[in-house]
Amino acid sequence: MPAMTPEELHRFQAEHFPQAAHLDLRIEHLDDTTIRVRLPTKEQHLRPGGTISGPTLVWLADLSFYLLIMGRLGPVAAAVTTNLNINFMRKPEPGDLLGEGRLLKLGKTLAVGDFTIWSEGLKDPVAPATVTYAIPPAR
Amino acid sequence: MPAMTPEELHRFQAEHFPQAAHLDLRIEHLDDTTIRVRLPTKEQHLRPGGTISGPTLVWLADLSFYLLIMGRLGPVAAAVTTNLNINFMRKPEPGDLLGEGRLLKLGKTLAVGDFTIWSEGLKDPVAPATVTYAIPPAR
Amino acid sequence: MPAMTPEELHRFQAEHFPQAAHLDLRIEHLDDTTIRVRLPTKEQHLRPGGTISGPTLVWLADLSFYLLIMGRLGPVAAAVTTNLNINFMRKPEPGDLLGEGRLLKLGKTLAVGDFTIWSEGLKDPVAPATVTYAIPPAR
Amino acid sequence: MPAMTPEELHRFQAEHFPQAAHLDLRIEHLDDTTIRVRLPTKEQHLRPGGTISGPTLVWLADLSFYLLIMGRLGPVAAAVTTNLNINFMRKPEPGDLLGEGRLLKLGKTLAVGDFTIWSEGLKDPVAPATVTYAIPPAR
Repeated sequence: MPAMTPEELHRFQAEHFPQAAHLDLRIEHLDDTTIRVRLPTKEQHLRPGGTISGPTLVWLADLSFYLLIMGRLGPVAAAVTTNLNINFMRKPEPGDLLGEGRLLKLGKTLAVGDFTIWSEGLKDPVAPATVTYAIPPAR
Repeated sequence: MPAMTPEELHRFQAEHFPQAAHLDLRIEHLDDTTIRVRLPTKEQHLRPGGTISGPTLVWLADLSFYLLIMGRLGPVAAAVTTNLNINFMRKPEPGDLLGEGRLLKLGKTLAVGDFTIWSEGLKDPVAPATVTYAIPPAR
Repeated sequence: MPAMTPEELHRFQAEHFPQAAHLDLRIEHLDDTTIRVRLPTKEQHLRPGGTISGPTLVWLADLSFYLLIMGRLGPVAAAVTTNLNINFMRKPEPGDLLGEGRLLKLGKTLAVGDFTIWSEGLKDPVAPATVTYAIPPAR
Repeated sequence: MPAMTPEELHRFQAEHFPQAAHLDLRIEHLDDTTIRVRLPTKEQHLRPGGTISGPTLVWLADLSFYLLIMGRLGPVAAAVTTNLNINFMRKPEPGDLLGEGRLLKLGKTLAVGDFTIWSEGLKDPVAPATVTYAIPPAR
């Protein structure tokens, strides 16, 4: 059972990441090893051509995977990203982005997972990412 | 000789990336295969703990490498990022970020380069990244 | 329907990769977008500690994804790897390695997919990889 | 000053990696944060078309960076690769491969560096890689 509920994670995010408060990331599912999120997209994420910017996709993968780890370990964990690898495969459509993350390894010092982003309603993924977080020893 | 000057690239960025207009990225050097940029950091890039967010570092690497390719090929090139890999090695200090990019390959369909980010005044890099851009065939 | 059967791909591999003939990679499943392979491990893949070497895991991911693309496009495709990213998460056990690959994008010039490696009989994966291949224009 | 000399590292490699004994990797330079190596290439590394296989390039990057860490920390360090990202940019020419590695971070639990491979005599690199090693806590 996760250490934090989606509601607690939403509050934690609002409190600790006020800069991202205008981005309405919603956790739709959370368990010990997976997370599913939804991001309604807004004007400020868009690049020329009406598409969603690469850094917004990176932000989505990074934050969602962070919330998955927090949900598992609780709010004491000050995990920090150490590696992120992302392939941008298709232009995302304007509209909601959906993302699914899986925790593939939760070791003493490293957490590794993948995170895949879709445009809602389309079958082929927009961007798969792999993320590594360092878990501080004092927990 | 680059196809565009730093001033032309600054104007291009302001016109085509109005969402990033509040981020005052400055090109300090540009030639055919290298770019050096400076990013004065502001409140909205900061994460808990006063550090600069990972997605801001990604944005910096991605945009700077894009400007390097544009500088080389001219404004017609609609290059798109296909892969980005970044290692977050140290907490960036509040203050200016400096970045240096190198174009390692400019092929017919792919451009590959690396981009390294420093906190001004510190010797050890904050984050090295590798970026791949797809170059559209019609140019 | 794939353009080549597993048997044709085994013959193709034996003919074009004679250096790897001693590695008895077997395709257990193949369709248009997925491949599953088995690699019986032998002495020469082992590192100190009796584990399977990282480069052998890379070789497995790279070759299997190549066979998946060949199976889809037929033997004319001279695809070449352009990017490979792999996380080594657990020490593989001596014994058979299993691998599953998925083709996430097959574009005009790039194919992108992921490939995950397990030790037979264990639930948690050993190493997930992401691979990009360039597809030559003349096909 | 490195904890081990190139000669000690060559002996260490021969003893602990007997499977690679036929690969005559030579350390040409070593200091606390950089390594330069040479790999005379032989028939068994070659792929169709007379080029050097991707996994051989990966092996070269991975082992060389391992030797750099060992040279720095001494033979007690049982460092293991956790992430490797490589871009294959050009077909390597048959002939010697040269490689240069830099240690970008040596933390308590992670070492991060880059490693670039060239074909001897050619200016443009063949493959840049980024490597992360986990350093066991007990050292």
